[in-house]
Amino acid sequence: MTIDEYLKSRRAMVEAALERELPPANTPPAVIHEAMRYAVLGGGKRIRPILAIAAAEACGAKIEPLLKAFSSLELIHTYSLVHDDLPALDNDDLRRGRKTTHVVFGEAMGILTGDALLTEAFSWLAAPVEGVDASRQLRAIAEVARAVDSTGMIGGQVADLEATIGGARTPRPHGADDVSALLFIHRNKTGKLLTASVLLGGILAGADDDELATLRRYGEATGLAFQIVDDLLDIEESAATLGKTAGKDVEQGKLTYPALMGAEAARAEAGRLLGEAVANADMIKGPLNYLAAIARFICDRRS
Amino acid sequence: MTIDEYLKSRRAMVEAALERELPPANTPPAVIHEAMRYAVLGGGKRIRPILAIAAAEACGAKIEPLLKAFSSLELIHTYSLVHDDLPALDNDDLRRGRKTTHVVFGEAMGILTGDALLTEAFSWLAAPVEGVDASRQLRAIAEVARAVDSTGMIGGQVADLEATIGGARTPRPHGADDVSALLFIHRNKTGKLLTASVLLGGILAGADDDELATLRRYGEATGLAFQIVDDLLDIEESAATLGKTAGKDVEQGKLTYPALMGAEAARAEAGRLLGEAVANADMIKGPLNYLAAIARFICDRRS
Repeated sequence: MTIDEYLKSRRAMVEAALERELPPANTPPAVIHEAMRYAVLGGGKRIRPILAIAAAEACGAKIEPLLKAFSSLELIHTYSLVHDDLPALDNDDLRRGRKTTHVVFGEAMGILTGDALLTEAFSWLAAPVEGVDASRQLRAIAEVARAVDSTGMIGGQVADLEATIGGARTPRPHGADDVSALLFIHRNKTGKLLTASVLLGGILAGADDDELATLRRYGEATGLAFQIVDDLLDIEESAATLGKTAGKDVEQGKLTYPALMGAEAARAEAGRLLGEAVANADMIKGPLNYLAAIARFICDRRS
Repeated sequence: MTIDEYLKSRRAMVEAALERELPPANTPPAVIHEAMRYAVLGGGKRIRPILAIAAAEACGAKIEPLLKAFSSLELIHTYSLVHDDLPALDNDDLRRGRKTTHVVFGEAMGILTGDALLTEAFSWLAAPVEGVDASRQLRAIAEVARAVDSTGMIGGQVADLEATIGGARTPRPHGADDVSALLFIHRNKTGKLLTASVLLGGILAGADDDELATLRRYGEATGLAFQIVDDLLDIEESAATLGKTAGKDVEQGKLTYPALMGAEAARAEAGRLLGEAVANADMIKGPLNYLAAIARFICDRRS
């Protein structure tokens, strides 16, 4: 199976789980369930559930019973996008080539839809899974929650807002403080949830502590590479290709890797992180291991 | 111990747990942790954690190890208030006699603070508790999550918004549809989390299925009575006593019990529900049972 075939088949499993497990659109009150489905089922790479699947498969697990838990990662990711897009935050009208949730359903529903997706995610994570120890599931919930709390994803978003608002960065020279602020933002805003996705796969697959430490290193390198590539794409791609308002990071004076160190150095750093990710991926000795291929895919992607 | 002494001592335990378990205000990024502490530590009756404590004590449990899990209920309640107060929702400037979180910290931080509190709540619920089975803890998380999801608390808030926005209710006559809409709003917006609070206490205390069914009936009756009394207080109390903009429900044309059936009938209904709550409370045969007294306190309160 090529990496493209692997990603396509696992993405289809995630899509099916999301479609099946989200409350039907006519569940009262219908508007919130329409909005939740609109936000979640509007495309996306599903990279977080796929990372969990790949980690679980690399550790030798059968993934069918774990798909609901893994798909919760996409609910969390989507909730963060829905809230980030709100007028009080990034004020984005377009996402994945479609109108953002608050543009379609109104600002109040945008806030509540994000809330509902986050809550639903924890429901899915807490649903009993046949063959998985309850204590492992509890550990997984704690790991995911910590990754997206005020010292994780939300903390990264707060630091990002502060960097932008404190702003007027372009064209003043950048310093060491900016690099450390940027690392804080990237590690927290996107890195920790990507790492937790890999760990969720390992924990529910029954990985031992050594394997989990390896998966964590893989996840951290892959997560940071993912974000650097994202920054590079924001500069390079046009709005048409990317489906969001491109170049906005630059326009808003956001801290990005290319802005701080130049596109060339940023590309080199992504390459170094890829090497680290691959080395750790290769230490997991399961029968079906696409972890390294996924890291390569993330660094080579064009959108 | 009188009910006042009981409530005071349990509330002090909850305050201490919240103070201890919330991230310190200087944790980076500091602003979100200041905002979380501002929102949570600004007073409040702490009725949800106290209901969990009372249920656990009625079932014979030692509550000290459970306080962190029980206090998560206050994080969830506070998150819902912080988001409900936002300009896009109820647009309230005052809460518990103080400026609301978004007024002090800005709208973006209001949204993210609510998100952070909800996430933190699930961290606290997933933290290992000595002496409690992981499978019971998982069940407790699922119960709490379901109570506050899009078919629970958030669903109630959505229905409430729709009733208000669909609005222009005053002074047109009210009908049967209004009564069923009102019951949907109250059962979901406040009732389910209050019921889940009671159940959380029972589940972590090791209650059997019969006891949990009794606790559920107690919680449902108490929760609905609580909301009816809230509606009555909104009409009766002045802004000075209540610490929020009183009479606002009426002004916004919100569905309330007194508006639909008159204050007299609403008071009678609260009394009937209190009887139901007390009858179920008395079926729990633990050594320390303040459940009935709490239900009475809720119905007699003046704020």
